[in-house]
Amino acid sequence: MSATELHEAIAHKKARREKYAQWEFLRLTDKFHGAARGSVCIEDKVLYGYPSIGRILRVETGLQHQFRAPFWVEEKVDGYNVRMARVGDDVLAFSRGGFICPFTTDRATDLADLRILDEHPDLVLCAEVAGPDQPYISGHPPYIQEDVQLFVFDIMRVGEPRYLPQREKHELLKRYGLPAVQHYGRFNTNQVSEMRALLMRLTEEGREGVVMKEDSPRDHRAKIVTSYSCVDDIRGTVDHLRDLPAEYFTGRVLRLALFLDEQGEQRGDELRQQLGSAFLDGLFHAIDQSKQERRVYRTHRCRFRDPENARRLLKHMKRADGHLHVTERGLEKAGDYYVLEFDKLHAGMSGLLGHVLGGGLVFD
Amino acid sequence: MSATELHEAIAHKKARREKYAQWEFLRLTDKFHGAARGSVCIEDKVLYGYPSIGRILRVETGLQHQFRAPFWVEEKVDGYNVRMARVGDDVLAFSRGGFICPFTTDRATDLADLRILDEHPDLVLCAEVAGPDQPYISGHPPYIQEDVQLFVFDIMRVGEPRYLPQREKHELLKRYGLPAVQHYGRFNTNQVSEMRALLMRLTEEGREGVVMKEDSPRDHRAKIVTSYSCVDDIRGTVDHLRDLPAEYFTGRVLRLALFLDEQGEQRGDELRQQLGSAFLDGLFHAIDQSKQERRVYRTHRCRFRDPENARRLLKHMKRADGHLHVTERGLEKAGDYYVLEFDKLHAGMSGLLGHVLGGGLVFD
Repeated sequence: MSATELHEAIAHKKARREKYAQWEFLRLTDKFHGAARGSVCIEDKVLYGYPSIGRILRVETGLQHQFRAPFWVEEKVDGYNVRMARVGDDVLAFSRGGFICPFTTDRATDLADLRILDEHPDLVLCAEVAGPDQPYISGHPPYIQEDVQLFVFDIMRVGEPRYLPQREKHELLKRYGLPAVQHYGRFNTNQVSEMRALLMRLTEEGREGVVMKEDSPRDHRAKIVTSYSCVDDIRGTVDHLRDLPAEYFTGRVLRLALFLDEQGEQRGDELRQQLGSAFLDGLFHAIDQSKQERRVYRTHRCRFRDPENARRLLKHMKRADGHLHVTERGLEKAGDYYVLEFDKLHAGMSGLLGHVLGGGLVFD
Repeated sequence: MSATELHEAIAHKKARREKYAQWEFLRLTDKFHGAARGSVCIEDKVLYGYPSIGRILRVETGLQHQFRAPFWVEEKVDGYNVRMARVGDDVLAFSRGGFICPFTTDRATDLADLRILDEHPDLVLCAEVAGPDQPYISGHPPYIQEDVQLFVFDIMRVGEPRYLPQREKHELLKRYGLPAVQHYGRFNTNQVSEMRALLMRLTEEGREGVVMKEDSPRDHRAKIVTSYSCVDDIRGTVDHLRDLPAEYFTGRVLRLALFLDEQGEQRGDELRQQLGSAFLDGLFHAIDQSKQERRVYRTHRCRFRDPENARRLLKHMKRADGHLHVTERGLEKAGDYYVLEFDKLHAGMSGLLGHVLGGGLVFD
C-alpha cells in the first residue's frame, strides 16, 4: 500500500489519522484495496492488518472442501490479537483495529525477549495475548492463572501483507526463544479421525480450538473451535447479553450443535446441562448484581510498568467503544508494577434489568 | 377513525388497500392517530386493531408498578390472534395485521356458534385460535390434541377502540355459550404469592401464561409468561433459528432467568437440562433434516370447508412473508373437510446448514 493509496483511503473515509504519545499514524477503519481493516502506516512503515480467518463448523467436509494440500495445525488461543513491531526506538503493539494498545505496548518487554525486532526491524510479530489480567475480553485459557502471556502465531514483514512461510517462522521462533502457540503438526485432509480426536482432547483441556494453515504458496487458512469454547463463551458473556449482538449467542449454540452432531454426541446429557447452566448462571449473577448494586459491570485489573500507559488505556477504552462506560477504581504501585483496576459498566444490561426488576413493561 | 383519516393514512403510507374474494378494504400497516396496526375499514365499518400488550418479567414489582386497582387474570393461550366480525352476510376473521385470514374465516362456524354476531352485528370478537392443525405458528397448548379451538378474550364494538367491560363481556360469553379463555379471577396487587402459585401451576400444566386486565376505567393491561412457555418457544422454533431475529431466543432465555430467580428456583438443575435440550434437540432435528433432504422445513396441515379458501390461504401466505417459501403438498377431501398439507421452507436455515455441512466457511 503506497502513501497515495492511503491518502485515497482517507478521502474515502476508510482511514483515520490517529495520535498516541509522540506518534502520529494512519489506521484503516475498513478494508481498502485488498488491505485489511486495522492496517496502519506509521513513520513511513506500513503494517498490514490481520484479516479474520473463516470458520468451518464441520471437520470432515470442512477439511475436504477447504484444503488442497496438507496443512499445519496450531492452537487457537482465547485472547486478543496484536501485532508488535519496532517503530523508531520503541516497540509498539497494535490492536486488531489498528490502535496502539497502551497495555500491550507497556508490557511488551515482559511478554517476550524482543531481540528479534532489534536484529530484524522489518519483522512484525502477530500474536495472541491471553490471561485473566487484561483489559479487553472476559475469557482466558484455564492454564493461565494470572497476568497475561504472549503466544506468537505468525510473523510478517513490514510493507508486506503475507506471512512468513511456516518453516521460516519456526526457525525464527526457536532462534529467539519466542513464546508461541502450541503446534499440533502437519495434517492432511484424510486425517479426519485424528482431527476429531485432537478437538476432543482440546475440549477436555479447556482450549478454544485450532487454526489450520495450508502448507502451500496460497497459505489458505480456516479455524474450528471446540464445544468447550462455545459453552465457555456463552458462560463468560451472558451477564451482558443485551450489550452484545444476539447473534453472538445463537451462533455459538449453532456451532455447538454442529460440533456435537459430528462427534456423534447427540445423546449426551452432560452438554445439555452445561449449555443450560452457561446461560442461566451468568444471568443469575447479573440479576444479583443489579439487585445489590443497581448496575451490571465487571472489574478488570491489569499491571503496568508506566502509570502513564494506564491513563492512556482508560482514554483509549473510553474512545474505542461509545457504549462502554469505564470507571477507574484505582491505580496503585505494587512491587515493580502499577496495578490498574477499573469497571466496565454494561449499560444495556444495567438499564434493562433495572427497568424489569422494578416492574416495568417491555414490548417485543 | 373517520374515512378522511383513513385516506390520510394511505397518503402517509400507513395504510393499504386490500382485496379478498369479493371484499375490498383498507388495512393500517402501522399505527396511525392512536389506532393500532391492523385496524381495518371494510364496508364503512372500522374494526380497530388489537394492540400488543406489554410484558412484565417480575411478579411482585410488576403488579405493584402496573396496577392501581384490582385486576382480572385470564389465561394467555399459545395461538394466533384474530378479530371476528359480521360484514354483510358473512363473518370474516381478521389477523393481527389486518388481513382476512382464509383459514379462520373458513372455519368460523366450526369454531363457535356465532349467533351473537347475528343479534349484535356491531360486536367484534377478539380471540386466540390454537391447536396443532393450523397454518401459522409451531406451538400449541398440550390440552388441544387435534385441529384448532377458539378462545374469546375480549369483545369490542365496531368503530370503537376500547373493549367491553369485563362483566358485560362475561354476560355475553355466557348467554351465547362462546368458548373463552380460562378465567382465574380478580386479584389485587398484594396477592403476589397467589400469583406465583398460579404461574407455577400453569407451568406444570404446560400453559403459556396470563393476561392481567385492571378492573378500572383505564383498563390497563399487562402479561406474564411461565417458564414452560420460555423453554417451549425455544424448543419449537430453534430448528429455524436463522429465520427469526436472534433476539427471539436471547429474550426468552432472559425471561426464563428472571422468572426462575423470582420463584427462588436458581438452584434447580432440571430447568438447565431442559433449556440445553430445547436448544440442542431442535438443532439436531434441523441438521438431520438438512442431511437427509437438503432443506429445513415444516409440514403444516389444516382442514377447510371450502377448497377455495385453502387456495386463498396459500396465496395469502406467499404474500404475507417474502422470506417464506410455501409449497403445497396436497389438498384432499376427507369426510366433511378438505385437508390441505403444505411445507414451509426455512430458507435461512436451509442455506446456512447446506453451506456449513458441505464444509463451507463462515465469517463472523
